[in-house]
Amino acid sequence: MIALPHMSETDVDYEDLMSIMARSMRPNQIRRLTPLLARGDMISFAAGAPSPETFPYEELAEMSARAIRDNGRIALQYGPTRGQGKLLQEIAAYMTARGTESEPAHIVMTSGSQQGLDLASRVLLDPGDIALVELPSYVGGMIALHNSRADLRGIAQDKDGMVIEDLEEKLKTLSSERRRVKCVYTIPNFQNPSGVTLAADRRHRLIELAEKYDFLIIEDDPYAEIYFDDSSSRLTPLSALCPSRVIYLSSFSKVLAPGLRMAWVRAPKLVAERIELAKEGADLNSSQLDQSIVLEAVSSGLVQRRLPFIRRFYAARCRAMLDALTANAAGTSRWTVPVGGFFILVTVADGIDTAELLPSMIERGVAYVPGQSFFCDYTGANTIRLAFSKESPEKIAEGIGIMCRGLRERTAVA
Amino acid sequence: MIALPHMSETDVDYEDLMSIMARSMRPNQIRRLTPLLARGDMISFAAGAPSPETFPYEELAEMSARAIRDNGRIALQYGPTRGQGKLLQEIAAYMTARGTESEPAHIVMTSGSQQGLDLASRVLLDPGDIALVELPSYVGGMIALHNSRADLRGIAQDKDGMVIEDLEEKLKTLSSERRRVKCVYTIPNFQNPSGVTLAADRRHRLIELAEKYDFLIIEDDPYAEIYFDDSSSRLTPLSALCPSRVIYLSSFSKVLAPGLRMAWVRAPKLVAERIELAKEGADLNSSQLDQSIVLEAVSSGLVQRRLPFIRRFYAARCRAMLDALTANAAGTSRWTVPVGGFFILVTVADGIDTAELLPSMIERGVAYVPGQSFFCDYTGANTIRLAFSKESPEKIAEGIGIMCRGLRERTAVA
Repeated sequence: MIALPHMSETDVDYEDLMSIMARSMRPNQIRRLTPLLARGDMISFAAGAPSPETFPYEELAEMSARAIRDNGRIALQYGPTRGQGKLLQEIAAYMTARGTESEPAHIVMTSGSQQGLDLASRVLLDPGDIALVELPSYVGGMIALHNSRADLRGIAQDKDGMVIEDLEEKLKTLSSERRRVKCVYTIPNFQNPSGVTLAADRRHRLIELAEKYDFLIIEDDPYAEIYFDDSSSRLTPLSALCPSRVIYLSSFSKVLAPGLRMAWVRAPKLVAERIELAKEGADLNSSQLDQSIVLEAVSSGLVQRRLPFIRRFYAARCRAMLDALTANAAGTSRWTVPVGGFFILVTVADGIDTAELLPSMIERGVAYVPGQSFFCDYTGANTIRLAFSKESPEKIAEGIGIMCRGLRERTAVA
Repeated sequence: MIALPHMSETDVDYEDLMSIMARSMRPNQIRRLTPLLARGDMISFAAGAPSPETFPYEELAEMSARAIRDNGRIALQYGPTRGQGKLLQEIAAYMTARGTESEPAHIVMTSGSQQGLDLASRVLLDPGDIALVELPSYVGGMIALHNSRADLRGIAQDKDGMVIEDLEEKLKTLSSERRRVKCVYTIPNFQNPSGVTLAADRRHRLIELAEKYDFLIIEDDPYAEIYFDDSSSRLTPLSALCPSRVIYLSSFSKVLAPGLRMAWVRAPKLVAERIELAKEGADLNSSQLDQSIVLEAVSSGLVQRRLPFIRRFYAARCRAMLDALTANAAGTSRWTVPVGGFFILVTVADGIDTAELLPSMIERGVAYVPGQSFFCDYTGANTIRLAFSKESPEKIAEGIGIMCRGLRERTAVA
């Protein structure tokens, strides 16, 4: 049989074959920046990745080899969709200790919190359903909600997190328009990108509204353990205040290593069941090797033991950045003062577009993420997300100096 | 502030909060069987997992420790959504060597082929779009298509794979009804669950129909390298015949270890871009440690070197099962004769429901998967999927003997 000449890639109208979701997907602008930052001498406040200086290389190397040598029939084989039984027990015990009574039936291990956000979005949202998000909010979370074709609406935030009055007003209006609000997505601790923490009284009021307006709260809490100040550190998670209304997510990415892609969802049992089913179709199960390693890292106490070091490590970097901002930008810009996490949000003078400014900053050797992509209503053009996780305190001081000089020159021109 | 008593899990109507997808998800019946098979002495032909005897434990233990010790800043950190650059190059070279000219821009690494199937479904299918699948077909693939709320229609299969006349007839009818067929999902080599291989001439005709009716082919090829007979082994992949019409998927699960969750998609560049974007929202990136290990396993030649052993290993088990069927079931049942892969499909007498029969078989100490769940039209109640991958040739002979005695007794009663 002679093969006939077939169409080449350029002859096919792929756009016409794509789904509505595929045609409306938005790239994550932050990840698009990554290749620009490859220059060796760049001081980067852009990527919100944990510092490689916090990874326990030797311990993880030994644990991984051991997982394969001693338990390879688990680590190398297919496994249950929810995750390894012992790991589910460890997570349930941890959640219970943090105030959310949990059993394995509440837990699903996920391939990073991003997968949890995607699965939660898929089981909750139909096209046109409304998802409320903070202004600003985490891009990856918004992408997950958007990919389920939800209609995203923003809720104002101040230094104490989501403004509950604004939330209530929006809920009232939407309810009067008979629009279904399925969920509120919040990052209550040391938020990405703003660094702010949702105040205790607002947590209670958010839950009251969830009960009144019958929606679920997606509580994204990857920085839970990275607090800087013991006294202010332990605000009760929303999931502990009202487990029946919360899909809680947290992760080993920030306290162990993100390359292992290991996170979890804690949800009401019926919701956890649906998330498990959705995960079955999404990837059958997460990496068994990653699970085996994380299980040993948790059960041996390695994760817990290293937390004080990790907290001090990022606290010093946060302090360095706040000091440098005070020294260089006082009076011209405003910024948030986080008590944990990786991020500070800077608001510069009105009329400055920080995205437009970025190329010249990169030329000067410093990078950040323009804030606008974190605002679902496309405001925030004069904001900047600064991650203090990557650079040393010295580099942070140097980089903030460079950035603030650039901002001053720009303000002088304008 | 005093916390008010909140609703408990039993007070919330979660069903009402779920998406249409969540409410219509179907569990994978095969994975539901797994707990039943825990009995130590069970001879299981159920799970289609690779044999742990084929895993290279020591090599993988060393590679994983090395990946973390020597390249931990890659293996433990976030990485690019598409996968590590060197791994994309290795896969592109492999695809090119197998006849599909490829660059990294065509490739996306996925967390198992299940993720590739899910992402391909999401970028192609809107609710109500039609996806055509083989009768029978792989449950995980059908779940992925179903979760995008596609309308699945079955195409007849015989010993040479999909019956093209049936496909053409269905395409004509659907086209006259103005129903959009977006894709045909096929497992052309040693199909799961039937074990049959799509004949060479049918491959050409399938592609002609894809061009004529403007759809894409999802070519799921996880068993590509597990062929038993060199002469018949190398049918040209559909992707090599016409790369512009094919989303090709393959995996390291069967030739290395499925616990590592490492697979890939090869697609036209514009489609690969959308799959990459969908993956960004789905899990940011696959396990970096798994990628680092697989990269060394490929580039060191370990995977390639072990293929002859793996082929002989499964060929012996297939032979043992075919011999046992001939000895025990000739004249009463029919079965397929695979030239690769893990599976044989047995058709027993009309009127026997193999699902109904399963509990008594499990009691006798032998397990299989009832065929019906592989048929999207709910036919096939008198079929059985047998996996010959797990048990030794001796256990296979014993188990087929037990199963056939059970079938004979059942037939005598009926």
